[in-house]
Amino acid sequence: MNMKKTKVLYQHGTLALLVPGLFAGTETLGKLLEHGDTGIGTLDGLNGELIILDGKVYQVNATGKVNRIKKREKVPFANVHYQKDQFIDKIGPLKDEKLRSAILDKLPSQNLFYAVRMTGEFANVKTRAVAQQKEPYPTLKQTADAQKVFEKAHVKGTLIGYYAPQLYGGVAVPGFHLHFLSKDHSFGGHVLKVDSVATKLYLQEFAQLDLHLPAKNKAFRKQKPSKDILKDIASAEN
Amino acid sequence: MNMKKTKVLYQHGTLALLVPGLFAGTETLGKLLEHGDTGIGTLDGLNGELIILDGKVYQVNATGKVNRIKKREKVPFANVHYQKDQFIDKIGPLKDEKLRSAILDKLPSQNLFYAVRMTGEFANVKTRAVAQQKEPYPTLKQTADAQKVFEKAHVKGTLIGYYAPQLYGGVAVPGFHLHFLSKDHSFGGHVLKVDSVATKLYLQEFAQLDLHLPAKNKAFRKQKPSKDILKDIASAEN
Repeated sequence: MNMKKTKVLYQHGTLALLVPGLFAGTETLGKLLEHGDTGIGTLDGLNGELIILDGKVYQVNATGKVNRIKKREKVPFANVHYQKDQFIDKIGPLKDEKLRSAILDKLPSQNLFYAVRMTGEFANVKTRAVAQQKEPYPTLKQTADAQKVFEKAHVKGTLIGYYAPQLYGGVAVPGFHLHFLSKDHSFGGHVLKVDSVATKLYLQEFAQLDLHLPAKNKAFRKQKPSKDILKDIASAEN
Repeated sequence: MNMKKTKVLYQHGTLALLVPGLFAGTETLGKLLEHGDTGIGTLDGLNGELIILDGKVYQVNATGKVNRIKKREKVPFANVHYQKDQFIDKIGPLKDEKLRSAILDKLPSQNLFYAVRMTGEFANVKTRAVAQQKEPYPTLKQTADAQKVFEKAHVKGTLIGYYAPQLYGGVAVPGFHLHFLSKDHSFGGHVLKVDSVATKLYLQEFAQLDLHLPAKNKAFRKQKPSKDILKDIASAEN
C-alpha cells in the first residue's frame, strides 16, 4: 500500500448507472480491494448492502442476515479507500437530523470528499437492504420501493460511509451515504435513520477521486442518460 | 509510463471552482505532466488557453500570441492523458454544428470520457483566450465577457480536447471542450466555432477519471457551492 493512497477515494461505477437499472456486477471484490480496505457498495443484481471493514466484506441481504462475501463476487457500484482516518470528537445523544448536521459541521471543507466512520452506541437505527434483482432489471426506484426495512432500538456498531460535495450528485450520492454494521454482525444495511447515543466520529479527507467506469459493459455503454437523475436518486436513496 | 495509464483521464481542479473565480494556480505543469503528455487547461489567474501536445505546453494569451510555457508555472484547472488514440475517420467539409454532431456520432459511447483529436485543414476557426486576472478575482462569467476573440478563415492545425458525459457537467465541461493550435504555432485558443475542410478524427476512450482536487487551497476549501453551476458554465464556456 502506497502512503499517498490514503488521500484517494476509489469508486467503481456511478450512482447514475443504477437509476435506470444497470445492476450487473462489473468489477470483482478482489479487484476493488486492490484500491482500499474500507468502504461500501452493493453486489451483482443489487444484491444487498455491502460494508467493507479492515479488508473484510460483509453483506446485509434482503432478509437482514449478515454474510461474509468472497472476493470473486462482483459489484456494479462501490467505494473503497485505505483507512487512515482521524478521531474528530466524541458525539453524545443526537437525533438523526441533528447528528447529520453535527457531522456536517465537523467537515473541514464541504468541497472535498470524506470518509465518515462512527463507532459506539446507536439508537433507533433504521436500515434498508435491497434484494437481488433478475434480468431484465427494474429501475432503482422500483427496487427501492420493494426494499426490506430493519430497525433496532439500541445497538453497538460502526457507521461507515462517505460525504460527497453536491457537485458530484449523480456520480455519487450527494451529501452523506452511510451504511451500518452492528458489532456482533447480526444487523446492518443502508442507513435510513440513526441516532447517536455515545459515539466517536472519525473523518478522512481525500484529495483525489479515482472514478473507474465499466467501459466493457455493453448495457452501460449504450444507456441513454436520465433527464432527472438527481430527483430519481433522491427518491431511491432516502 | 504505465500501459494502463492510457485508459486514464487525469484532471486537476473542477470547472465549477472557476465559476466563482477560484483562479489561483494550484498544481505545477511539471506535476500535471506526470499524468499525461497531451491535454488542455489554463494558467494561474486564468492566464490564457493551454494546449499540451507531445509533452510540450503552449499557451495562447489574451493578445492571441502563442508561447511555450515552463513547467514551474501553475494551473487551476487542466486535463491531461497519455496519447494513444485511434484513427476513426476522415472528415470532409462540415460546418461547426454538423462537425460536432459528426464527432458525437462517432463516439462509441456517450457515457464515457474521450479525448478528441483532429488534424488537417480547418475553416472559420473562431477561438477565444481569457486574460490573466488579478486578485481579488472576478467570476468566470465576468472574465469570459472580457475575453479576446480571434478568427481565421483557413488554417492547418490540431483540434484537441475532450468529450465528457452530461453527468459530469460542473466537474468538467459537459459535452465537448476543445482547444486549437495551428500547425505554424501562430494561432489558437479555446474553440468557439470551427468548420472542418479536410481532417482526420482520432478518439481515445477512458475507463477512469482521476480527479485531483486542490485540497490545500484555502479559498477552494471554504468556497460556498454555486446554485446555478450549469447555467453559469454554459454562459461562460460557449
